[in-house]
Amino acid sequence: MWHLYHFPLCPFSRKVQLSLGEKKIGYELVTLYPWDADESFHRLNPAGRVPVLYDAAKKVALIDSQAICEYLEETVSDRPLLIGSARARAEIRRLVALFDENFYGDITGPLLHEKMRKRLVLRQSPDSRVLRETMRLLHEHLDYIDWLVDNRRWLAGAQLSLADFAAASQISVVDYLGGIDWSDHESAHGWYRVIKSRPSFAPLLRQKMDGLPAPKHYADVNA
Amino acid sequence: MWHLYHFPLCPFSRKVQLSLGEKKIGYELVTLYPWDADESFHRLNPAGRVPVLYDAAKKVALIDSQAICEYLEETVSDRPLLIGSARARAEIRRLVALFDENFYGDITGPLLHEKMRKRLVLRQSPDSRVLRETMRLLHEHLDYIDWLVDNRRWLAGAQLSLADFAAASQISVVDYLGGIDWSDHESAHGWYRVIKSRPSFAPLLRQKMDGLPAPKHYADVNA
Repeated sequence: MWHLYHFPLCPFSRKVQLSLGEKKIGYELVTLYPWDADESFHRLNPAGRVPVLYDAAKKVALIDSQAICEYLEETVSDRPLLIGSARARAEIRRLVALFDENFYGDITGPLLHEKMRKRLVLRQSPDSRVLRETMRLLHEHLDYIDWLVDNRRWLAGAQLSLADFAAASQISVVDYLGGIDWSDHESAHGWYRVIKSRPSFAPLLRQKMDGLPAPKHYADVNA
Repeated sequence: MWHLYHFPLCPFSRKVQLSLGEKKIGYELVTLYPWDADESFHRLNPAGRVPVLYDAAKKVALIDSQAICEYLEETVSDRPLLIGSARARAEIRRLVALFDENFYGDITGPLLHEKMRKRLVLRQSPDSRVLRETMRLLHEHLDYIDWLVDNRRWLAGAQLSLADFAAASQISVVDYLGGIDWSDHESAHGWYRVIKSRPSFAPLLRQKMDGLPAPKHYADVNA
């Protein structure tokens, strides 16, 4: 049995959960907050962070969200998420990296620091300058999603792929942390509502962080 | 003909160059410094950064170092670098991510800011506290490489893989930016000398940054 080490607002753990969900692979969640990663967890993952997908009986520990998703692609044929020609797969992986690295670095990472870590661990107020800057960058990223959705059926092309789930993972965390101003981003909003209403997304909409309630609209698939 | 957009001290472009070199794929270099990425480059890569592997005639632009390396694996059978079972490939990808993300975030990224960007663009002195902290973290990462090399033939297992080249790419940039204190890291040092003496590495040892000379030992494969 797989155990997924995660914390509810980790966008990379969310990407893995969506991949597991789409492929209908069973797993149990183990919650591990970044500030609770102790020595025993570092023995499991020297990088000291989630997600880790672990099977204790088989002694398999898969580490790093993209390595996990590639492994699931290679071992489970149900609902492939890295599809098409080598070039099409390169486009999917480009977009996954864009959301995992640039979107996370510009928006999700700073927001998790300002709104989660400062509230739950550091007991500080968020820095309003940082929040404004992330909102400015969020609009740039949403403009790009608008452009993709206006020119393609899904983010990476004609088929639903890991790129859509990587993007939606980041966006869902931003949405939990205060909501997204979708005005001027109708295309992106329509796309996100479709992803959000998939059965694989339902567990994410139920997961809550203690001490950090989600806004009311968060779990509403029509919002 | 492939053109690789890079700058000489970009560790991710180095990883792609090593992959191209190992697979004996021809290419020409196009130098693009991060501070020169203009609108036309952003049209090529919306993330605005190198490496980009571009074939103008075929209109193929491959973006993101890992997406490029995966594409090369899927399209060129010579010298596979993501080898073995799905589990072995997951281990290679875990280590690639460890070096691309954690090693880069802890060491190469801060050093490039302090020693390259501050010198060439900002005209500032490096912050000695940051330099000390990167050196401390470097020893932790080298300890881990020592452990890997002591327990396996190559970093990810019995065979040379992309993990070795991802690690050596980061280390070569750190070495260029001032050298590495290898005392207490004999295993890692022996492993790096072997990688450094491969033909695929020779172009990296010749590439220089204007205004930022390499230390004397940098290109010496016995150092």
